[in-house]
Amino acid sequence: MKHFLTINDLTNLDLAVAEAIALKKDPYKFNNIGENKTLGMLFFNPSLRTRLSTQKAAHQLGIHTMIMNFSNEAWALEFENGTKMSGLRSEHIKEAAAVVSQYCDIVAIRAFASLTDKEGDEAEKVIHNFAKYASIPVVNMESATAHPLQALADAITIKEHTKIKRPKVVLTWAPHPKALPHAVANSFTRMAQKLDVNFVIAQPEGYELDPKITKKIPLYLNQEEALEGADFVYSKNWCSYTDYGKVHPTEDSWMLTAEKLKKTNNAKFMHCLPVRRNIVVADDVLDNPNSLVVEQANNRTFSAQVVLKKIVENG
Amino acid sequence: MKHFLTINDLTNLDLAVAEAIALKKDPYKFNNIGENKTLGMLFFNPSLRTRLSTQKAAHQLGIHTMIMNFSNEAWALEFENGTKMSGLRSEHIKEAAAVVSQYCDIVAIRAFASLTDKEGDEAEKVIHNFAKYASIPVVNMESATAHPLQALADAITIKEHTKIKRPKVVLTWAPHPKALPHAVANSFTRMAQKLDVNFVIAQPEGYELDPKITKKIPLYLNQEEALEGADFVYSKNWCSYTDYGKVHPTEDSWMLTAEKLKKTNNAKFMHCLPVRRNIVVADDVLDNPNSLVVEQANNRTFSAQVVLKKIVENG
Amino acid sequence: MKHFLTINDLTNLDLAVAEAIALKKDPYKFNNIGENKTLGMLFFNPSLRTRLSTQKAAHQLGIHTMIMNFSNEAWALEFENGTKMSGLRSEHIKEAAAVVSQYCDIVAIRAFASLTDKEGDEAEKVIHNFAKYASIPVVNMESATAHPLQALADAITIKEHTKIKRPKVVLTWAPHPKALPHAVANSFTRMAQKLDVNFVIAQPEGYELDPKITKKIPLYLNQEEALEGADFVYSKNWCSYTDYGKVHPTEDSWMLTAEKLKKTNNAKFMHCLPVRRNIVVADDVLDNPNSLVVEQANNRTFSAQVVLKKIVENG
Repeated sequence: MKHFLTINDLTNLDLAVAEAIALKKDPYKFNNIGENKTLGMLFFNPSLRTRLSTQKAAHQLGIHTMIMNFSNEAWALEFENGTKMSGLRSEHIKEAAAVVSQYCDIVAIRAFASLTDKEGDEAEKVIHNFAKYASIPVVNMESATAHPLQALADAITIKEHTKIKRPKVVLTWAPHPKALPHAVANSFTRMAQKLDVNFVIAQPEGYELDPKITKKIPLYLNQEEALEGADFVYSKNWCSYTDYGKVHPTEDSWMLTAEKLKKTNNAKFMHCLPVRRNIVVADDVLDNPNSLVVEQANNRTFSAQVVLKKIVENG
Repeated sequence: MKHFLTINDLTNLDLAVAEAIALKKDPYKFNNIGENKTLGMLFFNPSLRTRLSTQKAAHQLGIHTMIMNFSNEAWALEFENGTKMSGLRSEHIKEAAAVVSQYCDIVAIRAFASLTDKEGDEAEKVIHNFAKYASIPVVNMESATAHPLQALADAITIKEHTKIKRPKVVLTWAPHPKALPHAVANSFTRMAQKLDVNFVIAQPEGYELDPKITKKIPLYLNQEEALEGADFVYSKNWCSYTDYGKVHPTEDSWMLTAEKLKKTNNAKFMHCLPVRRNIVVADDVLDNPNSLVVEQANNRTFSAQVVLKKIVENG
Repeated sequence: MKHFLTINDLTNLDLAVAEAIALKKDPYKFNNIGENKTLGMLFFNPSLRTRLSTQKAAHQLGIHTMIMNFSNEAWALEFENGTKMSGLRSEHIKEAAAVVSQYCDIVAIRAFASLTDKEGDEAEKVIHNFAKYASIPVVNMESATAHPLQALADAITIKEHTKIKRPKVVLTWAPHPKALPHAVANSFTRMAQKLDVNFVIAQPEGYELDPKITKKIPLYLNQEEALEGADFVYSKNWCSYTDYGKVHPTEDSWMLTAEKLKKTNNAKFMHCLPVRRNIVVADDVLDNPNSLVVEQANNRTFSAQVVLKKIVENG
């Protein structure tokens, strides 16, 4: 693995999950493999879990971190080639990526979707250009279309709570007042296809995810039907993909409730956080012992740690 | 001590002061007790002294720090229970506190008073909710109504400069163009009541502090009278407590000057900083060798260090 | 060397360059000389290279860093003496500098020129007041009129690429949509006068640098003529010095191109970055193997490292 841009960059998901679970038991076991290594963490967007868990993971491996909020601490970046840079963007990605590569051994980047420029988002303008012009490995801390560190943490969490063969895993769309990216849903979907689970997705009409990602996964327009017999229910909002970036008249009835979960097999509840209570999911689900959201957040550390470890060992 | 939310959480102030003074002589003596421990420092407000001194204190104990400016780097927090989170707040304190507890062993929080919501400020909405929902110790880096790390640093400074039995300590209100919180004055008042000193407060009418905190301390409306024979004079502005958050027509005559200090027993001058020169206090006081303000700032490191040390040793 | 405020604070530039080149080969050789030392890095302006390279340099010496974006994380500073601080500035430099000196062993500061207050800029209000009121060494991370860490990195880069005796070095003005400070050009000019090179400057009329700095250096109004036979061409914009802070009707023809470089002795291209492509310099120059811009950025680490090392060894 050079870069970690999508969950597919992990050649063996099961092994990575197993290694993460082992790291969780002894987090400082490899605290010298990062000696004299530096991780640059560049944020173009807000972050709580990703920031703290990745920083913690690096620390547990003895990797030095340098953190920047790129948007307000550095210079606005130009990503197009051949332009006359006469506007607000005072540094080209070619220089920025090459320069960061001088100071760091690995660079991790968070750059959300614009949700206005579908082509640019799908081309992963920020993270792919960093990967192109940097001479060091790039780690995705949530890009326009993918959040693989989250998906890996989710895989760890599912593994830890799976007690039957081939559990049913449901990813269900949830309401939200704002247009949100597809990154988490995309990466969860890619990841779930690699697990030995019965994976289905439920969403209202018009909220279908990118068919290049969902492939042959069963898609339900009826949430109730999808939830039936579920062992894991992952609730998440995303905006329209076909009508890119749009939020259709709110489908409030899609909020997840304890009542709805009665049809499941006493399902565990999952969400990547942050979550809007009583909009995305009701208090009675989040405050129930079946909720795994805090464990998912905890597993973000070991997700990042296994990825950083693999990169350092390769390097 | 689990949490350090007010100065009253220190069971023995005198011992803590003595320990801080010992640490000051050998700051790195315990630089391995923080091994594999992480302190999260969350700022909802600006900070210079608190930020640097707490970070330094942690470093001197070998504690790893992760620092966030919560307001602009993370998500706006919801503190009410049962609300439909359809507004600007996208994460609930329940999740935020639980999640931070996964990555950190201690969390330190700065969250100033609103000065508009007396009830919310007195309930210490931010820091008390963190203490409630976090599973790790919480340290107050100035909350709505208390600044105990400052008060402990002040106690250290008074101890270091006390040469007589039962010195007279005066806390005197000072003018200021903006409405300022009561946190520093409250914590100093709580702290001073635990020292073997003659403690009095002077303030203009309408600026009386919370009587639940001042209790039986003599309150003077005449500053000159209060200053008489003082050994330590602590100058500080705060807004009205009864007419909550209001600044009454400026009482410029309350600015502290060298002239006024002539009536004291060659008093040492104290202030928590930042201080507005020639508004709160005249240059001739701040630039006089009797000013302890820089020493107070220095003692912030050892104040934080003794608190972090106690928490780590308990944990 | 107590402070490092301008390149002239290095008593022997050649030795510093040689030491930096040695450090580059073994960056962690002295990684224990910073034990129990803390570097405060205070930013009043954005930074990418300076921030990361200085942090990295400190880490390679084992120096602990504490980083603050002063403008938004701390309090607005007052620099005038004797004022009544009734406005927006709530902390005086006297206190700020004294306080930072309590927590740090060295403080590095970035504070750009205002470009509106020539007198204040030339007086180096921010960095000189820190140097005046701090009790610890101050390092310039780009001030109003100087950027000596950049100049030292440039000297290292020139040294590494010099293959003939007394090469010709040309500093040439470049167009830019915004008014930029003179700091980089000033420090490069000061530095180049200490090297055994043939140094000339080219700029359009009205863009002459401070004659107290350029002294007897040949100044060309004709860029083509200046470039003739050059071994190193350093391109950089700055605003008018005499008509302080002004940008005259754009001199687009001064953009550096591969065509123009044909008259040189296969010159190496230099720029401090960030650079606006196809405004300051054409793609065909930046993307040519003769461009040293990324190496200059890399040498920023060793420039900072040699300065910090000298200060720590002195202290």
